Amino acid sequence: MREPSPEIEPRFEPGDEGSEFDRALSAPELLEGWTIGNAVNGGFAMARLAAGLHPLLDADGGHPDCLALSAYFLSAARPGPYAVEPDVVRIGRTISTGQVSLWQEDDGARVERIRALATFGDLAAMSDPVRRQAPPPRMPPPHECVGLDDVPGESPVPFPPLMHRVELRLDPATAMWAVGQPSRQGRMRGWVRFADGRPADPLSLLFFLDALPPVAFDLGLMGWAPTLEFSGHVRAAPAPGWLQVELATDNFAATLLEEDARIWDSTGRLVAQSRQLAAVRIPKS
Amino acid sequence: MREPSPEIEPRFEPGDEGSEFDRALSAPELLEGWTIGNAVNGGFAMARLAAGLHPLLDADGGHPDCLALSAYFLSAARPGPYAVEPDVVRIGRTISTGQVSLWQEDDGARVERIRALATFGDLAAMSDPVRRQAPPPRMPPPHECVGLDDVPGESPVPFPPLMHRVELRLDPATAMWAVGQPSRQGRMRGWVRFADGRPADPLSLLFFLDALPPVAFDLGLMGWAPTLEFSGHVRAAPAPGWLQVELATDNFAATLLEEDARIWDSTGRLVAQSRQLAAVRIPKS
Repeated sequence: MREPSPEIEPRFEPGDEGSEFDRALSAPELLEGWTIGNAVNGGFAMARLAAGLHPLLDADGGHPDCLALSAYFLSAARPGPYAVEPDVVRIGRTISTGQVSLWQEDDGARVERIRALATFGDLAAMSDPVRRQAPPPRMPPPHECVGLDDVPGESPVPFPPLMHRVELRLDPATAMWAVGQPSRQGRMRGWVRFADGRPADPLSLLFFLDALPPVAFDLGLMGWAPTLEFSGHVRAAPAPGWLQVELATDNFAATLLEEDARIWDSTGRLVAQSRQLAAVRIPKS
Repeated sequence: MREPSPEIEPRFEPGDEGSEFDRALSAPELLEGWTIGNAVNGGFAMARLAAGLHPLLDADGGHPDCLALSAYFLSAARPGPYAVEPDVVRIGRTISTGQVSLWQEDDGARVERIRALATFGDLAAMSDPVRRQAPPPRMPPPHECVGLDDVPGESPVPFPPLMHRVELRLDPATAMWAVGQPSRQGRMRGWVRFADGRPADPLSLLFFLDALPPVAFDLGLMGWAPTLEFSGHVRAAPAPGWLQVELATDNFAATLLEEDARIWDSTGRLVAQSRQLAAVRIPKS
């Protein structure tokens, strides 16, 4: 293990406009830094889609937050130029709904990468009081969890650029896939935050819901696990500090499994959850 | 308790074209018989949307089954005339994706009730082998569970027409809300099948995922719980016989809660699961 890092490092100046995440959201291209393999991370893409809907659904300033987003992944988004096309579906009093697509040129053709539906509202008015919630998982504190630097020798999978955008510290009990000994429980737990210290906000929770390695790694399936469908709910604005994420899968048949993600903030409040249907490649035995 | 019914009653002749569900799917109007309160049941509406997409996404006969559907509920669908407008998003080799809306006239205006995205594939090729799955919940057999007829005296809520389309037998441990004593565990379990004996198939699982009373009843919240967003996954074609359904909610803040549904068939296989984000009305205390 490397030197323990303090539980909360206020490295990010609130006046600073230039977090990696915000720069990437406003860049005219999808950036290499947010990829896994050759594909742009789905969580980043979903945050970008929600950011594209925001001006349409929050025109009156009353619906600033994406409460729910369902994305269908049609083809892998690549680094490079892209277009986001948002549309209003319905503007309502307490919530508004929109549709949004991400397009790219591919071999001269215009190709749709992702289509999503999403509903916006005002979390400040829709997240309190907490009447019941799933408790955060028991796991060691961040400095007793394992970071990328802790993996001994050669990792069985190369670390994608995305993993340098976040600081991720996995519960050792669910990190043994990194040394070829997956727990096979279908669970992954970890602490996560932006590497540059940008505080998490409701929009970035859509990213963090899909920022960990696939839960399939814990079943010993180390290949890429493309998402077919992803639906996330943002339930509250996160408090500053580490986020605690737990991934779980319980149903895996043929090549399809669900990946459930839940995020708690540093106060132990559940702030977001999601389910995705993903496909894995089964090695021939 | 009434006379126990046999575990499986083969009352429905396979040659029969006229099940209530199939007639309702092909009717030019949304039927009163599938309503709760004054609104058409969301599960029926989702099955109808998937049925509307089917000809477009299964044009080659290779993608007969809706694997995933995400529906955003915009305004309550009412009994009466309606239009379903399906569109192709992407035709692929193993899966195809579409978008579909349900529209009605309302006060002279054309109003969108639901918009959904959905992916179709071939469950025959995508559901075996089962590599891991959540076990069905422990609960008494159907004849030891409680049906609508078992509720003593006046029910605290009137039984909506929908409840006559299905035979529903709830685990007594999660049915006490019907006599004003909710368990407050946020759970509801029951056996369900079509009242006229029509066998369940993959399409009808979209209906059954939303056919039970709201899980909010088990928290003592007996009002209507409108769905904002619903995403369901169909994982396998169900075997004949009773379906076992479990609803759960663990996160409830302000007026929003998730409702997770899982369905197992009569062999104990998990065949579908869903999550919805629903709003409840909190009584003033």
